[in-house]
Amino acid sequence: MAELQALELLSEHGCFGGRQRFYRHASAEIGLPMRFALFLPPEPKALLVFLAGLTCTEETFTMKAGAQRLAAELGLALLMPDTSPRGAQLLDEAKDWDFGVGAGFYLDAKQQPWARHWRMESYLMHELLPGVQREFGLAAERTGIFGHSMGGHGALVLAQRHPGAFRSLSAFAPIAAPMQCPWGQKAFQGYLGGDAADWAAHDATALMLMHAKSRRPQFPGGILIDQGLADRFLAEQLHPEAFEAACAVAGQALTLRRHAGYDHGYYFIASFVDDHLHHHAKQLCA
Amino acid sequence: MAELQALELLSEHGCFGGRQRFYRHASAEIGLPMRFALFLPPEPKALLVFLAGLTCTEETFTMKAGAQRLAAELGLALLMPDTSPRGAQLLDEAKDWDFGVGAGFYLDAKQQPWARHWRMESYLMHELLPGVQREFGLAAERTGIFGHSMGGHGALVLAQRHPGAFRSLSAFAPIAAPMQCPWGQKAFQGYLGGDAADWAAHDATALMLMHAKSRRPQFPGGILIDQGLADRFLAEQLHPEAFEAACAVAGQALTLRRHAGYDHGYYFIASFVDDHLHHHAKQLCA
Repeated sequence: MAELQALELLSEHGCFGGRQRFYRHASAEIGLPMRFALFLPPEPKALLVFLAGLTCTEETFTMKAGAQRLAAELGLALLMPDTSPRGAQLLDEAKDWDFGVGAGFYLDAKQQPWARHWRMESYLMHELLPGVQREFGLAAERTGIFGHSMGGHGALVLAQRHPGAFRSLSAFAPIAAPMQCPWGQKAFQGYLGGDAADWAAHDATALMLMHAKSRRPQFPGGILIDQGLADRFLAEQLHPEAFEAACAVAGQALTLRRHAGYDHGYYFIASFVDDHLHHHAKQLCA
Repeated sequence: MAELQALELLSEHGCFGGRQRFYRHASAEIGLPMRFALFLPPEPKALLVFLAGLTCTEETFTMKAGAQRLAAELGLALLMPDTSPRGAQLLDEAKDWDFGVGAGFYLDAKQQPWARHWRMESYLMHELLPGVQREFGLAAERTGIFGHSMGGHGALVLAQRHPGAFRSLSAFAPIAAPMQCPWGQKAFQGYLGGDAADWAAHDATALMLMHAKSRRPQFPGGILIDQGLADRFLAEQLHPEAFEAACAVAGQALTLRRHAGYDHGYYFIASFVDDHLHHHAKQLCA
């Protein structure tokens, strides 16, 4: 499982002394070809996974965030997966922008017709991540994760569901309590069905509250979240305050920064991405 | 003429402590609505115009180059115009990717049917640039220009054709001798017709050679050009060596850097954009 099948380099670009590459491979978990982007700095010391938001692809953060400059300097390899399977040809799979294609929510679907291909959690954790670590000689113990919006949800959830897989964690404007917002409710109902325990097991805030019982924070280096206050999705969809409260209960250090005048887009991400790279490098490259 | 008509703010994004804005206005020179992007740093000290390449829009450099971080720090406002008129509804205007829509070549067309709307030089120099300088209180004498590919041609040519308009000049992978390459020959024949003098008046290398007679360099701060050596257009279309030779004849200081492993795209531009911003700030903000 830890080998990437039919790995194909689609393009390669010189970038800040490193290489920005785009790959395709045959995913056994997804049952379809999948693409990912990988930035290799001149001297890779650690791996940082970025999960993108609704409607995005492996190219979005790669192209828009301006992360490679500092990543090259810090020695961070950057792995940008796609946001869902593509090409399954399910009926209406691309009808909605917030469900189906481009909206995998980084979980394994239980409901039909999604269960066959929409296996983003297993794909990332059991296939892509170990495959990339092995293929490019990157140490599993020096791996961090961050993401934006739906990908912020993915980062906060996968890091909690897979203890030890990610040593550092941050997010931009994450869907921090999906059970409590329309995007999350639609995705969980559609992919997981109606069982509340399944929903809670994929909700960053619920997971943090469940973990509170252990009285031992999972991320001793703290979690960093940036949130724009001019973000039009903030009030209805994101609920960082719920995650903040859960972290307080769990004794998990969290830096939640609220930025006046910043929206939900990549000009916001670009403005603060350097702080996230430093946050991860401090924990991964020490 | 120096007032932008029907100026409309389409969107605004917080970005590195400044504002990334997108505008539309009614262009008298073009006879159609035109769009541009403008980055306003927290404390604007100078204006730097970026001209984009074939198929690009005002959004391309804005979104992909990662220039705002250092521009905010240096106090450089960034103006990104579009690359051609749009919506003229001329027959076959969008048939070719290297002529017509997205391929204005920053000149005033003389040939029909292009002459009515394809007036990019007059639009930039007599309408957009003075209009933006006036609207946003940016000093005309602190204005620089740079560009990429077709926009590198535009920067090198407009700066020479309009002495005093731009105090600083640089380019990424410019079409440096358009009379000698297929892109330039197609554009000049189509927009200007068959008169060789017209072609020379819009060719960066020919202009530099003509200027050599004056024995007085137009850009005392020097010209900076970056060129990737893995650029698939280099051999046939770009000819930086011709411009380099012309600068040598004219006594114009030129730093032409050739970079192994870099291609024609925005990962190349992003990798070196900071050097260009420093090049301009040194001359504009002194």
